[in-house]
Order: sequence, then structure tokens, then C-alpha cells
Amino acid sequence: MAPQRFLILADGDFSPMTSKTANSVIRYMPERVVGVVDHVAAGGTVEDVLGFGGTIPVVPDMASGLALGPDAIMIGIAPMGGRLPEQWHAWLVSALDAGCDIWSGLHTFLGDDPILAERARVNRCEIRDVRKAPEQLPVAEGFARLLEPLVMLTVGTDCNVGKMTCQLQLTRQLNDRGVRTRFVPTGQTGIFIEGWGIAVDAVVADFIAGAAEKITMEGARDADVVLVEGQGSLNHPGYSGVTLGLLHGSCPNALILCHQASRTHLSEYRGKPWLRMPPLSEYIRMYEMAGSAVWPTRVIGICLNTYDMTDDQARAACAAAISETGLPCTDPVRFPADPALLDATLAARERYLKTGRC
Amino acid sequence: MAPQRFLILADGDFSPMTSKTANSVIRYMPERVVGVVDHVAAGGTVEDVLGFGGTIPVVPDMASGLALGPDAIMIGIAPMGGRLPEQWHAWLVSALDAGCDIWSGLHTFLGDDPILAERARVNRCEIRDVRKAPEQLPVAEGFARLLEPLVMLTVGTDCNVGKMTCQLQLTRQLNDRGVRTRFVPTGQTGIFIEGWGIAVDAVVADFIAGAAEKITMEGARDADVVLVEGQGSLNHPGYSGVTLGLLHGSCPNALILCHQASRTHLSEYRGKPWLRMPPLSEYIRMYEMAGSAVWPTRVIGICLNTYDMTDDQARAACAAAISETGLPCTDPVRFPADPALLDATLAARERYLKTGRC
Repeated sequence: MAPQRFLILADGDFSPMTSKTANSVIRYMPERVVGVVDHVAAGGTVEDVLGFGGTIPVVPDMASGLALGPDAIMIGIAPMGGRLPEQWHAWLVSALDAGCDIWSGLHTFLGDDPILAERARVNRCEIRDVRKAPEQLPVAEGFARLLEPLVMLTVGTDCNVGKMTCQLQLTRQLNDRGVRTRFVPTGQTGIFIEGWGIAVDAVVADFIAGAAEKITMEGARDADVVLVEGQGSLNHPGYSGVTLGLLHGSCPNALILCHQASRTHLSEYRGKPWLRMPPLSEYIRMYEMAGSAVWPTRVIGICLNTYDMTDDQARAACAAAISETGLPCTDPVRFPADPALLDATLAARERYLKTGRC
Repeated sequence: MAPQRFLILADGDFSPMTSKTANSVIRYMPERVVGVVDHVAAGGTVEDVLGFGGTIPVVPDMASGLALGPDAIMIGIAPMGGRLPEQWHAWLVSALDAGCDIWSGLHTFLGDDPILAERARVNRCEIRDVRKAPEQLPVAEGFARLLEPLVMLTVGTDCNVGKMTCQLQLTRQLNDRGVRTRFVPTGQTGIFIEGWGIAVDAVVADFIAGAAEKITMEGARDADVVLVEGQGSLNHPGYSGVTLGLLHGSCPNALILCHQASRTHLSEYRGKPWLRMPPLSEYIRMYEMAGSAVWPTRVIGICLNTYDMTDDQARAACAAAISETGLPCTDPVRFPADPALLDATLAARERYLKTGRC
């Protein structure tokens, strides 16, 4: 069966920083995206909006999108709380009636919607709720600490700073160097891209670490390096529990700290900026302390997201981070040839193989 | 309607340290417990097994238990992972057929079992799955930081060390002093005792802090002090995510650190003791750092569980904790007249009212 071609729904919210799922899917598999639905940005191309993605069109509504001949609709935005905008319901019905599958990462399972489920049944389409947790997850017991490959997790100063992107870039670079590297998806976008994984923010709270343990161990089969996709932030008022459970369940030997260089407050609170970010060095202390409370871990590099800066500003931001933390740092999207994080990972693996620690 | 009288199921596992739910329900509402089912301890009284609870009988099976005339069966043990032991199923059917309700805190919802649901329907009985999360929980936004009452959370060096018991004792003592104090239940046992609350370990991971925020705010109505029941431990390989989400969602101004004095390793790992507990001072540093990353908080006292010690050993353990941490410390179950934690809470409230911090 040929891989599916997706129409991405990101209506009203398609932009470099808001439509995270849409953007990452476009970045990592543009050849499988036929278009994006957004009435605001409609008329142009994805490249106009994101600065990458080429000539993929942005269309104003579902009818125009279906005319592009997709095999499946992908929900491309992740609203806070994860619920489906009501106005999309009719669009999804029409997509199912046109024979399209639906891939969704929302907390509300579309397959549980009786109308959508019935249309899917009648039209022999599939509704894939990738955030639906597997049955019978274990409570974590720290088994991931016993894995032979180097396990590295990205951690962040906030949500939506580049934790998945960092790992996807490194996965490519390491495999290109002949180091067998496996990316472990822990969120909807990673699962869309890789086709497996568990959305750890969607499991029952007692099983966050258990889910992380399970997929980290799966990712470790036939790999030399396991790169686990991070989630949230240890000081995020809403999502920190997911972050810590993932940290303890995956027992990473090394961490890369991800940060959006221009951000000063935690992003979900833009309207009410009461929670100021501490310096990177404080985040490093916090993550190393919290992680090492279960298994020794160390931050080995900084990954900056400088999407809203000039090249000069980005270079200055990296230099400042290097000077503050003493760690290698780059923006792997802006400077894909910069080997800073690749070299840091290879060096960490050397130390790990020799001493069992990074 | 008269309050229900419970028969507690704790078969094979009724003991001071394992049957946590059963024991706490007996400690805080013995007048509503008609008996305990456990074939191992059967023949004696609850007092024989626990050292408290008086003449409540322990019976070998459901038939003998139903003869005691309960209105409801309460599942009194919390197996790891929270699932129902299979052999209990037939017993619960017979209880429903005898007209009893069922109260359960298991992760597996008994109301979803088609046979039990059908027997409940036929017999007009209710199955109360207290761990079933409410619909439409919010993502936390730090609102609990704005509350007027002092919010205090118990945190622990492990699971099952006395975090709920500490708060229940303090709730009584503070109310006796005329300080309007509200206990906020975050786990099945607390919910059994108080009749409200949310089992934060049973909500979808993204909503742990949101659930904590919601019930902390509910508890703050008409209260001067809000005592939130803690869960797990920040260094527990399986449950730490719940602990941190609860810490950030409830935005406590003060913390009490709970510890079982004789324990050296995290308890779920007794068979494989790889995770040694750090000193109390290290836990304090860890909890204050993690909590204050969202909202300033401070550990103001130590609550020791000395159930397996002599009085002299218990006094020595408290003295050692005081000397190590410089904080007040007692075992409020063994020494109920010791005002150490009560005084520490009152002093914290004074500081909070004057300065907004503890």
C-alpha cells in the first residue's frame, strides 16, 4: 500500500509558532502533504507562512482541500486541553464521506464521536486517535536504566521550543554517521511522523513513567543511541508532571536542554506573564537534580530555537548560551551543518561506553 | 439517609503497612466499618492486626462478611497498578445480590464490568468508582497561587509513609483550635473518608495539575487553612509525575515532609533495593526547588511514621530529624498530643498573613 497523502487541518491557527503539529509534519514529510486548510492564510503556499515547505497550497476550507485528493485528514493544531473545535465536525463528516481517513492527536477521541464513527464505518474509513493510550501499561520500575544503548532525552525551558525537532535532526545526523539511532516518539506529532510511540501526556497519570519506560525499551532494540522526544517543562504549571514522569521513566544518561532564545516567560501564559523563566544554568541544575534523583543524568548540550531572529542574532544567542553554561550549543534548524550537538552526543556516548556515565 | 456501613475487602493483604486504604478508613471512621474480609487474619479483631480499630471482626470470606449486615462493600487494598484481583469478582456479585453498594478506588472501573454492572442494575445498587476522573478537567494555570487561605501540602520520601494521615490529624487539631481548616482529598482513601475530591493519579496526565488546582480552589472556600493530601514522591520511579503535578497545581505556600523512619529504600522496590533514599535535607532541597520553580514554597516540618519502632526509638528518630533539618518533627499518630506540627502550621500561617510567604 502506498503511504497516505495528508490534508492538514490547521484552520485559523497556521503560523510558525502555533501550529506545531502541522509544521513538524510538513518539515519532516512534505512529500506526503497535499495541502493545509486555514482560512486566514489561504491563497498562498506553506512556504509563505512557515519559510519552508515549498509550494504546498494553503486552502480556505475543507471542500478546496478535498479537491487536492488527500487519502487522510490530519488534525494539525493542538489546542490547549486538546479538544476538537466544534466547527470542524461538519468538515470531518464531509472528509469521511469523501473516503478520507482521519488522524488525530486530540485528547477527545474522534472515534468516540458517534456521528464520525458511523460515517467512518459506512465509508470504510479509519479514524486513528494516536493519543489513545495502549491498555495495560506498566507502573515504571526503572528498567530503562539497565539498557545498553546511550539514552538521551530532550528537556525544555517551556512547551513548544524544539524538543522533538532537535531529536529528529540528531537522529538523521547520527544515522548518516553510521551510528544506529532510534527516535522514540512521545507525542502526537512524533507519532504521526514515525508511525509508532505513545503520547505520554494522554495516559493515566500513574502510568506516565511506565509508558515512557515501555517505549524507551522498545526503541533500544537494535540501536546504539536512543533519542527520546521530550515533553513540556519541569517548571510548567500545567504539564510538569508529564515532564518528570518521562524523565524518570526513560532514565536518560544524557539530556539536551532546548530553549527558544527570545522567550522570557512560559508561553501558555503570554496574556498573563507571571512566570518568568530562570537562566539556563538554573534549568540545568533543576533537570540534573530531578533526573538524577532516580538515575544519574547530565545536560550535555543546549539546543536553541532562533526562528524569530536574524542569523547574527542567532549566533550571538548561541555564543551567550555557550558562555553561560560552558556547553556546546546551536540551532540545528538554522545551522544544520553545525556539528555542535552531534559531536556532544558522540562524545557522551564515548564516555558512557567507557564509564557507564555521561 | 443514614450513612452507609461498610464491609472492607482486604483479602490476603490486611496488615499495618499493606492495606493502606482499609487501615485509614478504619482509623478515621471506625463506627462505619462492620468488618474486614481477609482469610489470613480471620478470626481475630481489627485491633489485633492494626493495633487500633477495636472489636471490628476480621472474617474469612464474603458470606461471613455479608452476615454482619453491611450497606456497602469497600475495596480496601490498592494493588500496584490498581487492578481487581480476579477471585474477588464472584464475591462482589454475591454482595450486589445481597443488596450492597460497592465503593472502589481501583484503576479498573468496576462499573465497566458488564456482569457487575448488570447485577447492580438488577439489584438497584450503586457502584462508586471514586478514581473515575471528572469530565472536562482544566489544564492548570497557577490559579491556586492566588488563594487567600494558607495552602499546605504533604510531600513524602516515598509512597505510603503517612501524607494523608498527617493532614487528617492536623485538620482535626486546627479545627479544634478554631482555625477553619479543610482537608483536600487527592486519593481514593481520602475520598472514601471525606466523600469528595479527585484521585489525581487517575486523571489523564495533562490534567494532573489542573485537577489539583480545581480541588485546592474548592477546598479554599470558607477556609483559613487548606491541607492538601500529598501523593507519591518526587524521586519515585513510577509515580513522580503525579507528585510534581500535584505540587505545581496546588501551589502550596508550605510543605510538610513525611517519612517512615525505618525505611531506607523506596518501598515498591523492596525486592530489588536499587534506589536508596537520600537524607531528609536532600529531599527538602529537592521539594523546595521543584515547588518554587512555579510558586515559592518551603518545608516547615517533618512528619515521621514510626509504626514499627518502640517509643524510645521513635523519640530518637524525631530528635535525629530535628537535628538534621532544624525543623519541628513528630509522629502525630504515636504522639497525638505533641503540638510540633500544629504549632509549625500556625506559625507558617502567621508569616503567610504578614508577608505572603512562609
